[in-house]
Amino acid sequence: MPGTVPEKTQAQPPAPELRRDPITGEWVILAAGRSVRPHAPGGRVSAPAPEELLDQCPLCPGREELTPPEICAVREGGGRDCPGWSVRTLPNKFPILVSGAPHAGSEKIASNGRRPALGSSEVIVDTPLHNKPPWEIGAPQVKEMLEMYQERIRALKNQSRTSYVHIIRNHGRGAASSLEHPHSQLFGLPFVPPDIDSELDGFAAASADKAGCILCRMIGEVEEKGELVVMESESFLVFCPFASRLPYEAWIVPRSHQPGFEECTKLDELADLFTSFMLRLKKRLDDPPFNYWIHTYPLKDESRPYHWHIEVLPRLTTPGGLELGAGVWVNIVAPEQAAAELR
Amino acid sequence: MPGTVPEKTQAQPPAPELRRDPITGEWVILAAGRSVRPHAPGGRVSAPAPEELLDQCPLCPGREELTPPEICAVREGGGRDCPGWSVRTLPNKFPILVSGAPHAGSEKIASNGRRPALGSSEVIVDTPLHNKPPWEIGAPQVKEMLEMYQERIRALKNQSRTSYVHIIRNHGRGAASSLEHPHSQLFGLPFVPPDIDSELDGFAAASADKAGCILCRMIGEVEEKGELVVMESESFLVFCPFASRLPYEAWIVPRSHQPGFEECTKLDELADLFTSFMLRLKKRLDDPPFNYWIHTYPLKDESRPYHWHIEVLPRLTTPGGLELGAGVWVNIVAPEQAAAELR
Repeated sequence: MPGTVPEKTQAQPPAPELRRDPITGEWVILAAGRSVRPHAPGGRVSAPAPEELLDQCPLCPGREELTPPEICAVREGGGRDCPGWSVRTLPNKFPILVSGAPHAGSEKIASNGRRPALGSSEVIVDTPLHNKPPWEIGAPQVKEMLEMYQERIRALKNQSRTSYVHIIRNHGRGAASSLEHPHSQLFGLPFVPPDIDSELDGFAAASADKAGCILCRMIGEVEEKGELVVMESESFLVFCPFASRLPYEAWIVPRSHQPGFEECTKLDELADLFTSFMLRLKKRLDDPPFNYWIHTYPLKDESRPYHWHIEVLPRLTTPGGLELGAGVWVNIVAPEQAAAELR
Repeated sequence: MPGTVPEKTQAQPPAPELRRDPITGEWVILAAGRSVRPHAPGGRVSAPAPEELLDQCPLCPGREELTPPEICAVREGGGRDCPGWSVRTLPNKFPILVSGAPHAGSEKIASNGRRPALGSSEVIVDTPLHNKPPWEIGAPQVKEMLEMYQERIRALKNQSRTSYVHIIRNHGRGAASSLEHPHSQLFGLPFVPPDIDSELDGFAAASADKAGCILCRMIGEVEEKGELVVMESESFLVFCPFASRLPYEAWIVPRSHQPGFEECTKLDELADLFTSFMLRLKKRLDDPPFNYWIHTYPLKDESRPYHWHIEVLPRLTTPGGLELGAGVWVNIVAPEQAAAELR
């Protein structure tokens, strides 16, 4: 996340590393450098966050010199790191995944369950307006954001170090957002993350049972019964999944089978539906904190089938020891009720 | 969680049910009745929580009539549902797992990925004092709490519907605690939860590789290097795991191999160490919100090896879209640093 403190005054943080849990085999990202982030959520590990002042926001147009040089941007009239952009992608100033081995000797740790955290951490500033997320500007702005997501996935396909691109938005402090200016984040991961791996296994198992694509089947059932449908368009459906983990969880899916998000060519239609849904969510749930992420196909050779979707999770309850300690989610709002309220 | 509203004035909530995610196969607990809890965390789904007044706390001695009849208690001089107890176990007034099929026809939903949420939801009131968790009273109170944990695990072994007993504590609102009076919670689950299943697979894989018990090996390595050790006693070790998911995560483990927590006979020693560690955590991290849970052996036939441990996770940061959407944890404090600060 970009910060407001000029780089020269900060000590170089240690390079992030991956550590493998010896029991489960899952990788954790150790990014101790992030504890000096000026706006770390939680606020107890880092110094207290100062009031984030509009006239200091590093993501606003006119303050491009406060961020690392941009990776790419949509900007009429050309130029780099200057105002005039509508969407702008930057390297994260506090990266949890890095492009090379920035410290001498860091290759040495590629053993004993440790390795350098190689990958990409990017910030997509998806609106020039500090107080308006893209959907409050309008569908054309959302379309530009979605196009940028696709462009970055395509660009990272050429990086040998990246196996999966995870694109997210944390909206509101209760959903771990650390900067007020609307932005998305991209993580180019050097492995397929556990939640995607688990879904790929599920798709493969259904396919082996000759049930075809499990998400295509779910979509058919949702459309047939109707009670889980939130909204729809010709090519896309928004619904609350039958086994929602959290109240008002919603998925945005293409009705026709499509493995990777970057293959989607109907961005005008998707942007319209996405915009409508986001405005509805804000209105019906009183501008809740939420996360969304794109679940999509891995970048590398993958034999298991998949069907991309966007998952939106309002953060209205706090997970406790049953969720975090056992992996069992307790949902206190029935998805049928949630869908009815969001319709 | 027990509430302050007398039972008669509340509408009967719908029976909780289990729903299976069609893609991952994991079970979610749908407990819509909990949305009327007087003190639901998050505070947006339910009505605003009233100030919890000491003179209304339903878990304090003298107000036993406000809770469902107790399951068991440690009480000098005998009696039931009356003062004089030091530890008291109750059915949860807002259960997410229930002992029978409370509504006509609920067996019918045992199909299409739905089934009644059969199991147990219990509240262990582990101190009579409203403002003092057991470790602030002293090690003998902690020992009584640990003994109660063991007693409940043993009792639930005789229930055919329960496959795993998950015992947790949510401490502080930031860790999803909804009542101030110190208490633990027990969930008798009708399946082995995903996080335990995944650990069991890890233990089995290590054992098949002739590496023996993976946790015994981890303990040996931690003791040899020393930098992850927080505190220790003759039979137990407290350490920050190498691949900690969150800042200051700590595990309390028996040094000698032991599958199930209820087999532990050294409760005096464990209570002493647990008490010291909890007081240390409070002092060094300024009374942080935290969760702890016991990871232990399943109740039913299980061929995979295991080694019980208690995991303690301070809640200093907010998980976002990378943690919740990909299952990848980002830790901003190195466990070596965390252990040094907690020593």
